[in-house]
Amino acid sequence: MSRLLVISSDCHAGLPAARYREYVDPEHRETFDMALPVQLEMLQKASEKFLVADINEKWREGRESDLSGAWDHDARIRVLDGDGIAGEIIFPDGITEMNTPPFGAGLSLPTDDIVPELQWAGARSHNRWLAELCQMAPERRAGVAVVPALWDVAEAVREVQWARENGLRGALLPCMWGKLSPYHHPKYDPLWAACQDLGIVVHFHSGAAPTDDYFGGSMFDDNGAELPGAVGIYISEVAWWNVRPLTFLIWGGVFERFPKLKVAITEGTCIWVPQYLELLDQRYEITPYSAKLGDYTSHLSMKPSEYFARNVRVGASCMPRREAELRHEIGLGSIMWGSDYPHPEGSWPQTREQMVGTFQGLPTAELAAMVGGNAADFYGFDTAALQPLVDEIGPDASVFAA
Amino acid sequence: MSRLLVISSDCHAGLPAARYREYVDPEHRETFDMALPVQLEMLQKASEKFLVADINEKWREGRESDLSGAWDHDARIRVLDGDGIAGEIIFPDGITEMNTPPFGAGLSLPTDDIVPELQWAGARSHNRWLAELCQMAPERRAGVAVVPALWDVAEAVREVQWARENGLRGALLPCMWGKLSPYHHPKYDPLWAACQDLGIVVHFHSGAAPTDDYFGGSMFDDNGAELPGAVGIYISEVAWWNVRPLTFLIWGGVFERFPKLKVAITEGTCIWVPQYLELLDQRYEITPYSAKLGDYTSHLSMKPSEYFARNVRVGASCMPRREAELRHEIGLGSIMWGSDYPHPEGSWPQTREQMVGTFQGLPTAELAAMVGGNAADFYGFDTAALQPLVDEIGPDASVFAA
Repeated sequence: MSRLLVISSDCHAGLPAARYREYVDPEHRETFDMALPVQLEMLQKASEKFLVADINEKWREGRESDLSGAWDHDARIRVLDGDGIAGEIIFPDGITEMNTPPFGAGLSLPTDDIVPELQWAGARSHNRWLAELCQMAPERRAGVAVVPALWDVAEAVREVQWARENGLRGALLPCMWGKLSPYHHPKYDPLWAACQDLGIVVHFHSGAAPTDDYFGGSMFDDNGAELPGAVGIYISEVAWWNVRPLTFLIWGGVFERFPKLKVAITEGTCIWVPQYLELLDQRYEITPYSAKLGDYTSHLSMKPSEYFARNVRVGASCMPRREAELRHEIGLGSIMWGSDYPHPEGSWPQTREQMVGTFQGLPTAELAAMVGGNAADFYGFDTAALQPLVDEIGPDASVFAA
Repeated sequence: MSRLLVISSDCHAGLPAARYREYVDPEHRETFDMALPVQLEMLQKASEKFLVADINEKWREGRESDLSGAWDHDARIRVLDGDGIAGEIIFPDGITEMNTPPFGAGLSLPTDDIVPELQWAGARSHNRWLAELCQMAPERRAGVAVVPALWDVAEAVREVQWARENGLRGALLPCMWGKLSPYHHPKYDPLWAACQDLGIVVHFHSGAAPTDDYFGGSMFDDNGAELPGAVGIYISEVAWWNVRPLTFLIWGGVFERFPKLKVAITEGTCIWVPQYLELLDQRYEITPYSAKLGDYTSHLSMKPSEYFARNVRVGASCMPRREAELRHEIGLGSIMWGSDYPHPEGSWPQTREQMVGTFQGLPTAELAAMVGGNAADFYGFDTAALQPLVDEIGPDASVFAA
């Protein structure tokens, strides 16, 4: 038996909405009580908009206990053990378990119709709870703090310091900045410095997109029906909105100034990587076609693809086999498999079967890197401490034999 | 000698701004006179913002006569003959020759700070002049009418009919829709029907992007200097904004309802094609990961990549060799080389040398398709009528020998 270390680069956890109350700063609890019914109604509406309710209800049927692992320690341990997953990166949760943090502090971190002070309060309430959850199994759980950094960089630095002091290992930043400053602005440098120096991994997680373009008021036909194609457009484009901040970080010279900064781009597929990098490298080379633009590269000592290889990893949730086949084009060392538990689009409860489908027949060293080794290195998991657990629950390398 | 038919899928022409006056509807000439100084000042500012003035002045030096081919028939014939280009697709012009159509009717077709009635008037003035230019060499020139379709679909249909009646062969639509309806909205169906039935090729040309994100007011540092990276971000992202409408057309079922509609995506590179199609096809397959979204594909009888191969071509301006090497992944039949005359980033006046650099050593039939054959088929050029000219000016196939 040679069991593999599996780390899911993309898991989610969050309290049922009402239970965040005790984690919210006392001065915001009255507002929390007023906002809660609205939040629940919006979650319900979002669920109806993006999800087909009966399909998901059917999927959840009989799985309620295992799905409570979205917030419950014991259930979570049971489910991840069953999946063979020893370690996990934990993002806030979403629509399906109705357990997003309050005040718009969930995955998408919107900037429209948001009260910044409250979004911060919501983020802190989630981070406090998440720190507790992670401290129950610190060697297994790398928690990602919610950091709505666009409003206030100094506050973001403080939150990242708090996260580090309380055992969290990452920061989730918004993928979209609305009318606020994009990430090539030097105002964010103190945040990059703090994340680099504290070893906090910066995360961009798929989800946000200009949904008004697909589902907005004008996007319904005369009978009020959703326009054909809206869902397909959303699930195609959202991968681009997820990676968009990286373009700003690379060209903005952030990895030049902060060479040890770590960034993960999660649940946006990894099919985009090779040609994204080809395009950026093509643009980086000064050619007869680009000379008219003057000097736009001398602040970068490396090619975009070189920063990517050094500083960036991709959280490859629910990898299709095609992406595993393209691993050398994508970059073997850049890929971190993820299960996306407890989301219905995730691999649970067929994780083992789906992993075999994705990786079967690949060289063991290569698939071991993708299912766990790369994440262990990037996030600094204590693999020695995890070994006894791996020996007990990890999938055996032989199951991936051709 | 075996000379090749060369057609540039991306050339530009436009009158010096002041000379559009006689082509503007009489009722708008007073407004034209008031707007002209403002337009010239904005062109100047755009030139300073996006271009390094001294590099471009140096590039233009001594080439004034050849650059007047941007509007002058004789000069244009001389330049294209010199380049070995027998046929061309003609878009409006841009900043460098200060010859954009009035009232915001240029390449980007913005929707902010625009008076729709005037943008239409500007578009019509350009289309009238362009029709005259094309009629001076109708077998060589496929003119693309400017059609700001977002404001008024019925008006767009009328303009497309006018374009057809006056010998133009394409319609340029905006890549960005601002707060107006994206292209999966069925309200555009009459426009797609008209373009399909009249054989008018729909075009999206690179240029528009959310430039406020890169160059906007908040994007300057405390000393008022442009932020590092802005240019690199722009030239990387603009390729995505160029292709974005296609995602809406494909998922919206436009090619399902209008199977003979032709769309060209121009000057946004073609490096994005393989993995753009891989992503869309991946999303199109219903998998365990996407089942929760319900039915979002049954209105499409073909895969996204199949619509692309049938209905779409890519205007590959100034192709780097790498894109020629990837021709089979991109789709040999989808690539149409372009020179981008008279723009400084274009291949002129080194067109022949650059073409050889890009295509040297490739099978003649394949490079012949990319440099002209594909465009001839797509736009319906009369190749028999062009043959005597090709025999005179076309590059000999032997120059591409390895």
